[in-house]
This record gives sequence, C-alpha cells and structure tokens, in this order.
Amino acid sequence: MTAVANAAGAPARLSLNQWTTRRWSVPEAVDGCARHGLEAIGLWREPVAEHGLAATAKLVRDAGLRVSSLCRGGFLTAGDQAALDDNRRAIDETAELSAAALVLVVGGLPGVVPGEGPRAGFSRDLAEARERVAEALAVLAPYAGERGVRLALEPLHPMYCADRAVLSTLAQALDLADPHPTEQVGVVVDTFHVWWDPEVFRQIARAGGPDGGRIASYQVCDFLAPLPADVLLGRGMMGDGVIDFAPLTAAVAAAGYTGDIEVEIFNADVWAADPDQVVTTMKQRYLDLIA
Amino acid sequence: MTAVANAAGAPARLSLNQWTTRRWSVPEAVDGCARHGLEAIGLWREPVAEHGLAATAKLVRDAGLRVSSLCRGGFLTAGDQAALDDNRRAIDETAELSAAALVLVVGGLPGVVPGEGPRAGFSRDLAEARERVAEALAVLAPYAGERGVRLALEPLHPMYCADRAVLSTLAQALDLADPHPTEQVGVVVDTFHVWWDPEVFRQIARAGGPDGGRIASYQVCDFLAPLPADVLLGRGMMGDGVIDFAPLTAAVAAAGYTGDIEVEIFNADVWAADPDQVVTTMKQRYLDLIA
Repeated sequence: MTAVANAAGAPARLSLNQWTTRRWSVPEAVDGCARHGLEAIGLWREPVAEHGLAATAKLVRDAGLRVSSLCRGGFLTAGDQAALDDNRRAIDETAELSAAALVLVVGGLPGVVPGEGPRAGFSRDLAEARERVAEALAVLAPYAGERGVRLALEPLHPMYCADRAVLSTLAQALDLADPHPTEQVGVVVDTFHVWWDPEVFRQIARAGGPDGGRIASYQVCDFLAPLPADVLLGRGMMGDGVIDFAPLTAAVAAAGYTGDIEVEIFNADVWAADPDQVVTTMKQRYLDLIA
Repeated sequence: MTAVANAAGAPARLSLNQWTTRRWSVPEAVDGCARHGLEAIGLWREPVAEHGLAATAKLVRDAGLRVSSLCRGGFLTAGDQAALDDNRRAIDETAELSAAALVLVVGGLPGVVPGEGPRAGFSRDLAEARERVAEALAVLAPYAGERGVRLALEPLHPMYCADRAVLSTLAQALDLADPHPTEQVGVVVDTFHVWWDPEVFRQIARAGGPDGGRIASYQVCDFLAPLPADVLLGRGMMGDGVIDFAPLTAAVAAAGYTGDIEVEIFNADVWAADPDQVVTTMKQRYLDLIA
C-alpha cells in the first residue's frame, strides 16, 4: 500500500482529470494541481493542443506532475483510415507527455453522431462495429508498443452504446485486450460506467496481476439519480450519487493496481463552480470515500 | 413456425402492450385490438383496476384475446412485507386474467425513488438489494406456481439500475431464475433493455428450451439516440432507433419461443398521437422488421 497523504498533505494518488475543472486552461490546471498539492493530472488532447504539445510536456515536467492519462483516442468503429491516423497522432502525443495511458473511447455505431443521433445511412450492425474495433486495435497496439505507450480500453455505460462506445462491459474490454501484451493494452475501470455490472468484481479480479495487470486506469466519480437531461452529464462528485465506492476501490487494490486515481466529472454544476472549490471538495470526498 | 398473418390479415403473434396506446382505457384498448385484428394484449395493473379485474377478465375473454402479460409486480429490493403482499395480489390478478406471465420489475436501490432520486437514508448496497430479490422470489415463485402463474423477471437497461431494477442483464436474470421451475419463473427479453449486451445471444440461447425454455415474453421496441430528457421515454417505434431486430428475433425463435411478441413503447410523441394511427404503424413496422 502507498501512503494516503503526500508531503503536501494532499492525497498521494489523487489525479485531477482536467475536464473536471473544465474552465481551467492547461497552465491553470497545472498551477491548480501544484497549489492543491496534487501529484498527477489527467489531460485532454484539445486543451493540450491549444497550449501546445511540447509546451504542455515541459509544463507538467517542470511542475513534477505525473500525467495519469491522456483522453482520448478511439472512435474506431467505422474502419476508416482517418481514425487510425488520428489515433497514431494521439499515441505520439501520449509518448511526448509521458502519460501512463491513452484512453480509448472506441466509438458507437458508424453514422450515429454522439449526442445528436443517426445520420442517413448509419449502421445498426453492432457486431460489425465491435469487430472493427478489434481490427483497429491489432494495428494500433504494436504502434503504441514501439513508442512505450499503453492503450487503455474504456468500457462505457451501456446507455452510450449507440453513439459513443460499443464497448460496454469490463468483460468485453478484457476479451478485446487478451490478444495483446499487457504493457500495450490495458483497460479503464471507471466507477460511473461499471458500478451496475453484476460481473464487475469478477472481471476486476480477472484483470488483476503484477502492477495491476490489465488495469491501466482507475477513474472515480458518482452516478447521479435521476440522470440529467443530457445523460453525458450524469457524472457527479463522489458522494453526490448512488455508487458504493468502497468495494470497487478494494477490488481494484486487490487486483494489484497502485497507480493514480483520477477524478473525471462531466457535470454542469461542477463546471459552473469555482474550480478551486471543486478541487477542495474533490480532495475531501476522495479522503472520505476513496482513500 | 407459426403463420405470420392471422385470419384478420393482422400479424398473428403481435400483441399490443396497452401502455403503447396509453390514452386508451381497457375497453378502448380491447376494442382497438379487435378492430385491428390483433389476437393478444399486454395489460397493466392500474388501468385494469380502474376498469375492474373481473370485468377486464370477462372483456378480454369475450373478445377472444390472449393476455400476453400483466405489468407489473416487483419492487422487491427493500425486503418489506408490503411488497410481498402486493406481489401476491398481482399474482392473483394474473391468474384471474389468464395472462401468460406477470412481469417483474425488481426495483432499484432501496430509498431511491424512480425518476426522482435518493431519499434520506437510502441504501447504496447493490449486492444486498440483489440478494433481497432472490429471497423474495423464493417466497413468490411457489405462490405463483400454486396458481398456475408464471413470473417473468425483466432485466432493465443498466441506466435504470439505481431507481428501477437492480436486475440489469439476461445472464443475471437467468441466474436468478435457475433455482426455480421453468413454469414458475421465466425471463423477459426486451430489445430496448438488452440490445447492447455483448452476452445477449449467448444468454438467449442459454434461456432456450421446449416452449421457449425460460423465455416468458419477447418485447420489442427501439432504442432512441439521443435519449430524451426523461430516459424512461427513450423507447421508440421499431425502426425509429438504432436496434437491429433481425438477429435478436432470430435468436429468440431459435431458442424455441413461439409466444406472443409485445410492443411496449414509452414515448411522449407516441402517446400524443392518435392511438389508431399508432397501432396501424405498429402493425406495419412489425411486418417490416420483426415478423
């Protein structure tokens, strides 16, 4: 077990996913982590590109921050070359940032636009979409391996199956990872996405191994009930929803995972709040419910 | 295989779940089925109680309609006596209506109100809620068996796990049914709830057997993308969403199920439309996509 608190008195493994404090730019988020004593940050490609990749890499290095993950690659279900190219770029960025993993949100049914719905000529062939992901992974995993990058397959809650991820369970993610070396392909355990799954404890145990086995990232946030009108924003601060974090966190620890624990919240109220207050609350809730 | 069309030229196995034409009272829905040549109807307890149980039983019998299911019992996760009593009443009603099955929506986390959220003192213990369902089933299955009633466990989409059903997958429903005789406890296969599940075809096959094995009901409707603000109303007319019905229907047929196929749609636009038009559309879409 690692210590709960670091020298700055903050939780040692707690990582701020920058989307939680979305109003902060990359420099503001890095500064926020430093001021709050956090040791790790989860970055997103768009704000990183805005600040500049090399500049961001230098900034986090100089601040002594670990990059717990880069979000995100994926959207691989259409079997198009452009998506592969974009994922190769994302892998290169992950390497440059020395991020622990590149999170892959694999994509929904081809032609179903996230949050908008089906375009004319969209596909209902779920099995084929899933097959496309496996094929893309066979191309991308070796590319990632050559650059020392680990891909992290993220099963998303089944309510996003149509438009964001045909990868819906941890079992399915582990099946998809199976043909590839553990250091090339891992999985994300995100409490919001997996808490309901009757198989979750069995699959977390299956994922386990030295250095956490296949578990490349553990992300925490709560599941709000009722869900808001935009279901993408149903993620809440730990304690504000219905998830019992203790058994999930214990299972992830028992599986050997000792990496950073990222808090990633998509929530209109959290985004509207003062980011410093959000981080303060996040630290307290982390200590109360996760650490 | 049964014939696709009946003597009235309507689909032989198509059943109108009365919630699809919610504005119709029981007599109006029975009359609608007769006028449209349908042979079966799925009833709900509240409108049945409004019209009177004995009167409804006589009405459907006189109309020559099969009652494909009664909705619904369940809400068994709190382990309270009142819920058991209510389910016994629902079983008695199912017997009186000669319905093929009593659909059980097992309930969410105790204290989480459907569509509203957690009350003070609610429980986050998902494992315990699931255990309560198994315990209640051990009480109710023999009671149902004595009355010739079949309970139909309905796995609901995981987005309803917190507030409506901690039963989220077909595998879990079949595990729960396993200890009980097939004629006492079956499962509902509802396309909306199960279409995303990577295990769905394996589990439908597992459910199969003589007379459909554990499959007590096959319900069809589409999954809308994006979901509406109230996710309960995300069910659409077949063809209006993202589900590929052919492989699911083929799997259910291969599992030996030859019973009625119910169309149950919760959808503000469908409810606002002329019920006769809804039934006309339903028949056409059924012929195009299901039969």
